[in-house]
Amino acid sequence: MVYYGSIEAGGTKFVCAIGNEDAKVIERISFPTTTPAKTLEKVFEFFDQYDLKAIGIGSFGPIDVNPKSETYGYVTSTPKISWQNFDFLGAVKHRYHMPVAWTTDVNAAALGEQRLGAAQGMNSCLYLTVGTGIGGGAVVLGKLLTGFSHPEMGHIIVPYHPEDSFEGVCPFHGDCLEGLAAGPAIEKRFGIKADQLDEEHIAWDFEAFYLAQAIVNYLLVLSPDKVILGGGVMKQTHLFPKIRAEVERLINGYVQLPHLNEFIVPPTLGDHAATIGCLILAKEMKE
Amino acid sequence: MVYYGSIEAGGTKFVCAIGNEDAKVIERISFPTTTPAKTLEKVFEFFDQYDLKAIGIGSFGPIDVNPKSETYGYVTSTPKISWQNFDFLGAVKHRYHMPVAWTTDVNAAALGEQRLGAAQGMNSCLYLTVGTGIGGGAVVLGKLLTGFSHPEMGHIIVPYHPEDSFEGVCPFHGDCLEGLAAGPAIEKRFGIKADQLDEEHIAWDFEAFYLAQAIVNYLLVLSPDKVILGGGVMKQTHLFPKIRAEVERLINGYVQLPHLNEFIVPPTLGDHAATIGCLILAKEMKE
Repeated sequence: MVYYGSIEAGGTKFVCAIGNEDAKVIERISFPTTTPAKTLEKVFEFFDQYDLKAIGIGSFGPIDVNPKSETYGYVTSTPKISWQNFDFLGAVKHRYHMPVAWTTDVNAAALGEQRLGAAQGMNSCLYLTVGTGIGGGAVVLGKLLTGFSHPEMGHIIVPYHPEDSFEGVCPFHGDCLEGLAAGPAIEKRFGIKADQLDEEHIAWDFEAFYLAQAIVNYLLVLSPDKVILGGGVMKQTHLFPKIRAEVERLINGYVQLPHLNEFIVPPTLGDHAATIGCLILAKEMKE
Repeated sequence: MVYYGSIEAGGTKFVCAIGNEDAKVIERISFPTTTPAKTLEKVFEFFDQYDLKAIGIGSFGPIDVNPKSETYGYVTSTPKISWQNFDFLGAVKHRYHMPVAWTTDVNAAALGEQRLGAAQGMNSCLYLTVGTGIGGGAVVLGKLLTGFSHPEMGHIIVPYHPEDSFEGVCPFHGDCLEGLAAGPAIEKRFGIKADQLDEEHIAWDFEAFYLAQAIVNYLLVLSPDKVILGGGVMKQTHLFPKIRAEVERLINGYVQLPHLNEFIVPPTLGDHAATIGCLILAKEMKE
């Protein structure tokens, strides 16, 4: 049996898994994200039980994914102070002398969904997670999209809903998409947890409005074969029809879209998309 | 000598060229775009003088670039009536029994600039033309970006400038980027041709504001190594510093950008980018 390791490093919790060469999960654990030293100690304890061939990391960000950069492999300007400028990839490579793949959590999820999930058999997909933050990853031409940086799609600029005057919660941009539509924005705008708002609340009209604007912009730039929406906020599945209707209204027939019910969808792999993506990345590093 | 043909098909004029295997132009002609039959007659007359190995077409759009589609190779919902639903690729292939590459004019320009222009030696670039319309093309991972459709970046949604109340001129979306910032929008908003407005006119603040919003969104989605701005409106070179400053303000330090003077630039190949891109595509079709 050949074993690969996956680290899905979230800002709140870490999910580590051991998988086989078909990206099938053999064992999985999760624990809260504390300091880098304490958190990695638990990762290493778990991984040490197996004779791994390679490891894939999908990390919260922002992270440095530019192999030419001096801080390649670092977590960079995160608000989590103990993780700022932490050489995450370096620490894992120091412990394990094997190939280690390095990307964002959402890129890993996008890859998982494209290879074995909602976009299986397709060339491209976009994965957007809407939760405590908003992040996006994409596969294009069958590969993970990266350039001078990883995408930071969650921070794109969107116009205001005509009835919304909320100033936004993004510490960098105020009213970017994340600032207006991530879970904390919903909560702060209405003074109530998002999951306690009923389906008829105007909060969901705002939410669908903002997400649809963003999705339209992603579509016009990337033309993905599938748009996959995950994360805590998207557990409100009544958002899907609202978002699809708004996307259709905004595109207004200009671009021939795939059938929207099959085009804008939840992740098939559920919360496992990133883990599966990390296992695939690990295996491909080894090949 | 091996010859390749290039058709840069614009809504206003066609530029045809013969090039060698280094994408060096040997002969070039241009003529106004009339009906498909009359326009292609001139193309064929020109091409017939050479023993071509392959042809590359970079066309105005929207066009169908999905090889699985029944209307692959067609010009689709253009306002130019005689070109609507015209099988452009089919007509060229019917005449010449050789490989014919098919993409958008802006994709061809992006490829030209990435291989032999401003983004030479880089993996990716974004090419945006700002003229009678706004269109974008991109190279990612060294290849042209296409998905279910070609990108229609010119139609992304941007927030209004606080002092602008112009309703926009896009027939599909009204106030999308093209509707607010293409040449005809400037002209209609102020009742004067863009090239007659002096550099201090607020028109250019609006223009830089809208283009910067769009560029920021492209950056956050695509992370291109270079952003190349061409087209008639961008001949107003005083726009470049304004756009760079606005991009910097909007990103607000969240993403580590390349040095902006070398990052947001005019095309190195000038008006020849698309022709050179078409010659490269033609050659690669033959290989």
